[in-house]
Amino acid sequence: MAVTGFHHVAVAVEDLDGAVDAYTRLFGMTLEHRERVEDQGIEAASLTIGESRLELLASLGPDTYVGKFLAKRGPGMHHVAFEADDVAAELDRLAADGAPLIDEKPRAGLFGLEIAFLHPDATGGVLTELVGRG
Amino acid sequence: MAVTGFHHVAVAVEDLDGAVDAYTRLFGMTLEHRERVEDQGIEAASLTIGESRLELLASLGPDTYVGKFLAKRGPGMHHVAFEADDVAAELDRLAADGAPLIDEKPRAGLFGLEIAFLHPDATGGVLTELVGRG
Repeated sequence: MAVTGFHHVAVAVEDLDGAVDAYTRLFGMTLEHRERVEDQGIEAASLTIGESRLELLASLGPDTYVGKFLAKRGPGMHHVAFEADDVAAELDRLAADGAPLIDEKPRAGLFGLEIAFLHPDATGGVLTELVGRG
Repeated sequence: MAVTGFHHVAVAVEDLDGAVDAYTRLFGMTLEHRERVEDQGIEAASLTIGESRLELLASLGPDTYVGKFLAKRGPGMHHVAFEADDVAAELDRLAADGAPLIDEKPRAGLFGLEIAFLHPDATGGVLTELVGRG
Protein backbone atom coordinates (compact mmCIF):
# COMPACT_ATOMS: atom_id res chain seq x y z
CA MET A 1 0.00 0.00 0.00
CA ALA A 2 1.59 3.20 -1.08
CA VAL A 3 -0.80 5.97 -0.16
CA THR A 4 0.97 7.98 2.52
CA GLY A 5 -1.49 10.65 3.73
CA PHE A 6 -3.32 13.72 2.52
CA HIS A 7 -1.63 15.76 -0.16
CA HIS A 8 -4.18 18.58 0.06
CA VAL A 9 -7.79 19.53 0.66
CA ALA A 10 -9.31 21.58 -2.16
CA VAL A 11 -11.91 24.31 -1.73
CA ALA A 12 -13.94 26.00 -4.47
CA VAL A 13 -14.06 29.76 -3.84
CA GLU A 14 -15.84 32.74 -5.41
CA ASP A 15 -13.03 35.20 -4.62
CA LEU A 16 -9.48 33.85 -4.77
CA ASP A 17 -7.78 36.98 -3.42
CA GLY A 18 -10.23 37.13 -0.52
CA ALA A 19 -9.78 33.44 0.29
CA VAL A 20 -5.97 33.62 0.18
CA ASP A 21 -6.14 36.62 2.48
CA ALA A 22 -8.55 34.87 4.88
CA TYR A 23 -6.51 31.67 5.23
CA THR A 24 -3.18 33.47 5.61
CA ARG A 25 -4.56 35.95 8.13
CA LEU A 26 -6.85 33.65 10.16
CA PHE A 27 -4.65 30.55 10.37
CA GLY A 28 -1.16 31.73 9.47
CA MET A 29 -1.03 29.71 6.24
CA THR A 30 1.68 30.50 3.67
CA LEU A 31 1.04 30.97 -0.06
CA GLU A 32 3.07 28.28 -1.85
CA HIS A 33 1.96 28.58 -5.51
CA ARG A 34 -0.57 30.48 -7.54
CA GLU A 35 -1.38 29.56 -11.12
CA ARG A 36 -3.93 30.48 -13.80
CA VAL A 37 -4.75 27.49 -16.01
CA GLU A 38 -6.73 28.70 -19.00
CA ASP A 39 -7.46 25.26 -20.49
CA GLN A 40 -9.03 24.09 -17.20
CA GLY A 41 -10.79 27.40 -16.68
CA ILE A 42 -9.40 27.90 -13.18
CA GLU A 43 -7.09 30.01 -11.13
CA ALA A 44 -5.63 28.06 -8.21
CA ALA A 45 -3.58 28.83 -5.14
CA SER A 46 -1.95 26.37 -2.78
CA LEU A 47 -1.37 27.32 0.84
CA THR A 48 0.58 25.40 3.46
CA ILE A 49 0.74 25.22 7.22
CA GLY A 50 3.02 22.69 8.90
CA GLU A 51 2.67 19.49 6.88
CA SER A 52 -0.83 20.43 5.63
CA ARG A 53 -1.82 21.97 2.31
CA LEU A 54 -5.03 23.68 1.19
CA GLU A 55 -5.77 24.26 -2.49
CA LEU A 56 -8.12 27.12 -3.39
CA LEU A 57 -9.86 26.86 -6.77
CA ALA A 58 -11.55 29.81 -8.45
CA SER A 59 -13.45 29.65 -11.73
CA LEU A 60 -12.56 31.62 -14.87
CA GLY A 61 -16.15 31.25 -16.14
CA PRO A 62 -19.51 29.51 -15.59
CA ASP A 63 -18.84 26.63 -18.01
CA THR A 64 -15.73 25.38 -16.19
CA TYR A 65 -15.79 22.48 -13.72
CA VAL A 66 -15.32 24.83 -10.79
CA GLY A 67 -17.89 27.27 -12.20
CA LYS A 68 -20.46 24.47 -12.48
CA PHE A 69 -19.64 23.27 -8.94
CA LEU A 70 -20.10 26.80 -7.53
CA ALA A 71 -23.41 27.24 -9.37
CA LYS A 72 -24.73 23.90 -8.07
CA ARG A 73 -23.31 23.72 -4.52
CA GLY A 74 -21.92 27.15 -3.70
CA PRO A 75 -18.43 27.71 -2.34
CA GLY A 76 -16.96 25.05 -0.09
CA MET A 77 -14.96 21.86 0.00
CA HIS A 78 -14.38 20.39 -3.45
CA HIS A 79 -12.13 17.33 -3.07
CA VAL A 80 -9.56 15.54 -0.92
CA ALA A 81 -6.22 14.48 -2.39
CA PHE A 82 -4.06 11.64 -1.09
CA GLU A 83 -0.36 11.47 -1.83
CA ALA A 84 0.80 8.28 -3.57
CA ASP A 85 4.28 6.97 -4.29
CA ASP A 86 3.18 5.73 -7.71
CA VAL A 87 -0.15 7.00 -9.05
CA ALA A 88 -0.30 4.55 -11.98
CA ALA A 89 0.27 1.55 -9.70
CA GLU A 90 -2.39 2.78 -7.27
CA LEU A 91 -4.90 3.21 -10.12
CA ASP A 92 -4.24 -0.35 -11.27
CA ARG A 93 -4.71 -1.64 -7.73
CA LEU A 94 -7.91 0.39 -7.21
CA ALA A 95 -9.37 -0.70 -10.56
CA ALA A 96 -8.64 -4.34 -9.70
CA ASP A 97 -10.48 -3.73 -6.40
CA GLY A 98 -13.52 -2.52 -8.35
CA ALA A 99 -13.22 1.14 -7.35
CA PRO A 100 -14.84 3.44 -9.95
CA LEU A 101 -12.25 5.80 -11.46
CA ILE A 102 -12.59 9.07 -13.36
CA ASP A 103 -9.01 8.87 -14.66
CA GLU A 104 -7.76 5.41 -15.59
CA LYS A 105 -4.25 6.75 -16.19
CA PRO A 106 -2.32 9.53 -14.44
CA ARG A 107 -2.42 12.95 -16.09
CA ALA A 108 -0.79 16.32 -15.54
CA GLY A 109 -2.48 18.34 -12.80
CA LEU A 110 -1.90 21.73 -11.23
CA PHE A 111 1.59 22.89 -10.30
CA GLY A 112 3.24 20.21 -12.47
CA LEU A 113 2.04 17.26 -10.39
CA GLU A 114 0.95 13.83 -11.66
CA ILE A 115 -2.67 13.26 -10.64
CA ALA A 116 -5.77 11.11 -11.12
CA PHE A 117 -9.32 11.35 -9.79
CA LEU A 118 -11.46 8.56 -8.35
CA HIS A 119 -15.24 8.74 -8.76
CA PRO A 120 -17.02 9.96 -5.60
CA ASP A 121 -18.96 6.67 -5.53
CA ALA A 122 -15.70 4.97 -4.51
CA THR A 123 -15.60 6.88 -1.23
CA GLY A 124 -19.13 7.59 -0.08
CA GLY A 125 -19.59 10.85 -1.96
CA VAL A 126 -16.14 12.43 -1.65
CA LEU A 127 -14.39 13.43 -4.87
CA THR A 128 -10.92 11.96 -4.27
CA GLU A 129 -7.65 12.65 -6.06
CA LEU A 130 -4.33 10.85 -6.01
CA VAL A 131 -1.23 13.02 -6.35
CA GLY A 132 2.28 11.76 -7.04
CA ARG A 133 5.19 13.00 -5.00
CA GLY A 134 6.32 16.35 -6.43
CA MET B 1 0.09 32.14 15.58
CA ALA B 2 -0.65 28.80 17.06
CA VAL B 3 -2.54 26.85 14.43
CA THR B 4 -0.22 24.06 13.36
CA GLY B 5 -1.95 22.21 10.49
CA PHE B 6 -4.96 20.06 9.80
CA HIS B 7 -6.27 17.94 12.65
CA HIS B 8 -8.75 16.10 10.43
CA VAL B 9 -11.09 16.28 7.46
CA ALA B 10 -14.65 15.20 8.28
CA VAL B 11 -17.01 13.42 5.91
CA ALA B 12 -20.74 12.85 6.37
CA VAL B 13 -21.62 9.28 5.35
CA GLU B 14 -24.81 7.28 4.95
CA ASP B 15 -23.20 3.95 5.90
CA LEU B 16 -20.45 4.10 8.55
CA ASP B 17 -19.41 0.45 8.27
CA GLY B 18 -19.20 0.73 4.49
CA ALA B 19 -17.17 3.94 4.65
CA VAL B 20 -14.73 2.55 7.25
CA ASP B 21 -14.29 -0.50 5.05
CA ALA B 22 -13.76 1.60 1.90
CA TYR B 23 -11.12 3.90 3.40
CA THR B 24 -9.21 1.10 5.10
CA ARG B 25 -9.25 -1.10 2.00
CA LEU B 26 -8.72 1.53 -0.71
CA PHE B 27 -6.11 3.71 0.97
CA GLY B 28 -4.72 1.60 3.79
CA MET B 29 -6.12 3.85 6.53
CA THR B 30 -6.23 2.57 10.12
CA LEU B 31 -9.29 2.81 12.40
CA GLU B 32 -8.24 4.90 15.41
CA HIS B 33 -11.51 5.44 17.33
CA ARG B 34 -15.19 4.73 16.92
CA GLU B 35 -17.82 6.31 19.14
CA ARG B 36 -21.59 6.62 19.32
CA VAL B 37 -22.63 9.98 20.80
CA GLU B 38 -26.36 9.86 21.54
CA ASP B 39 -26.71 13.51 22.58
CA GLN B 40 -25.22 14.69 19.27
CA GLY B 41 -27.14 12.07 17.29
CA ILE B 42 -24.06 10.72 15.58
CA GLU B 43 -21.82 7.73 15.31
CA ALA B 44 -18.27 8.72 14.36
CA ALA B 45 -15.09 6.96 13.36
CA SER B 46 -11.63 8.42 13.01
CA LEU B 47 -9.14 6.89 10.60
CA THR B 48 -5.48 7.74 10.20
CA ILE B 49 -2.82 7.37 7.56
CA GLY B 50 0.64 8.79 8.14
CA GLU B 51 0.11 12.17 9.80
CA SER B 52 -3.40 12.57 8.30
CA ARG B 53 -6.76 11.87 9.89
CA LEU B 54 -10.22 11.43 8.37
CA GLU B 55 -13.35 11.60 10.53
CA LEU B 56 -16.45 9.78 9.28
CA LEU B 57 -19.79 11.02 10.66
CA ALA B 58 -23.00 9.02 10.41
CA SER B 59 -26.39 10.20 11.59
CA LEU B 60 -28.52 8.46 14.24
CA GLY B 61 -31.65 10.12 12.85
CA PRO B 62 -33.00 12.77 10.46
CA ASP B 63 -33.22 15.57 13.06
CA THR B 64 -29.51 15.51 13.92
CA TYR B 65 -26.97 17.93 12.43
CA VAL B 66 -25.47 15.19 10.28
CA GLY B 67 -28.93 13.92 9.31
CA LYS B 68 -29.95 17.40 8.16
CA PHE B 69 -26.68 17.81 6.25
CA LEU B 70 -27.20 14.48 4.47
CA ALA B 71 -30.81 15.38 3.58
CA LYS B 72 -29.75 18.74 2.16
CA ARG B 73 -26.39 18.02 0.50
CA GLY B 74 -26.01 14.26 0.37
CA PRO B 75 -22.94 12.41 1.61
CA GLY B 76 -19.60 14.15 1.25
CA MET B 77 -17.13 16.48 2.92
CA HIS B 78 -18.55 18.13 6.04
CA HIS B 79 -15.80 20.22 7.64
CA VAL B 80 -12.06 20.79 7.98
CA ALA B 81 -10.43 20.91 11.40
CA PHE B 82 -7.19 22.69 12.23
CA GLU B 83 -5.12 21.77 15.26
CA ALA B 84 -4.47 24.60 17.70
CA ASP B 85 -2.16 24.82 20.72
CA ASP B 86 -4.77 26.76 22.69
CA VAL B 87 -8.33 26.81 21.31
CA ALA B 88 -9.57 29.53 23.69
CA ALA B 89 -6.71 31.85 22.77
CA GLU B 90 -7.31 31.26 19.04
CA LEU B 91 -11.02 32.02 19.44
CA ASP B 92 -10.20 35.31 21.17
CA ARG B 93 -7.76 36.22 18.41
CA LEU B 94 -10.24 35.27 15.65
CA ALA B 95 -13.09 37.19 17.30
CA ALA B 96 -10.85 40.27 17.61
CA ASP B 97 -10.11 39.88 13.89
CA GLY B 98 -13.85 39.96 13.15
CA ALA B 99 -14.17 36.29 12.14
CA PRO B 100 -17.72 34.99 12.69
CA LEU B 101 -17.72 32.13 15.23
CA ILE B 102 -20.26 29.41 15.98
CA ASP B 103 -18.64 28.61 19.35
CA GLU B 104 -17.29 31.58 21.28
CA LYS B 105 -15.75 29.28 23.90
CA PRO B 106 -14.16 25.82 23.53
CA ARG B 107 -16.42 22.85 24.23
CA ALA B 108 -16.05 19.11 24.47
CA GLY B 109 -16.04 17.39 21.07
CA LEU B 110 -15.68 13.83 19.87
CA PHE B 111 -13.09 11.52 21.34
CA GLY B 112 -12.54 13.76 24.39
CA LEU B 113 -11.02 16.66 22.44
CA GLU B 114 -11.51 20.37 23.09
CA ILE B 115 -13.08 21.96 20.00
CA ALA B 116 -14.81 25.03 18.59
CA PHE B 117 -16.42 25.77 15.22
CA LEU B 118 -16.01 28.89 13.10
CA HIS B 119 -18.89 30.00 10.89
CA PRO B 120 -18.41 29.04 7.21
CA ASP B 121 -18.61 32.74 6.29
CA ALA B 122 -15.18 33.15 7.91
CA THR B 123 -13.55 30.90 5.33
CA GLY B 124 -15.43 31.24 2.04
CA GLY B 125 -18.02 28.56 2.71
CA VAL B 126 -16.00 25.92 4.56
CA LEU B 127 -17.26 24.84 7.97
CA THR B 128 -14.03 25.02 10.00
CA GLU B 129 -13.23 23.55 13.40
CA LEU B 130 -10.38 24.16 15.80
CA VAL B 131 -9.20 21.16 17.82
CA GLY B 132 -6.89 21.30 20.81
CA ARG B 133 -3.96 18.95 21.10
CA GLY B 134 -5.23 15.68 22.51
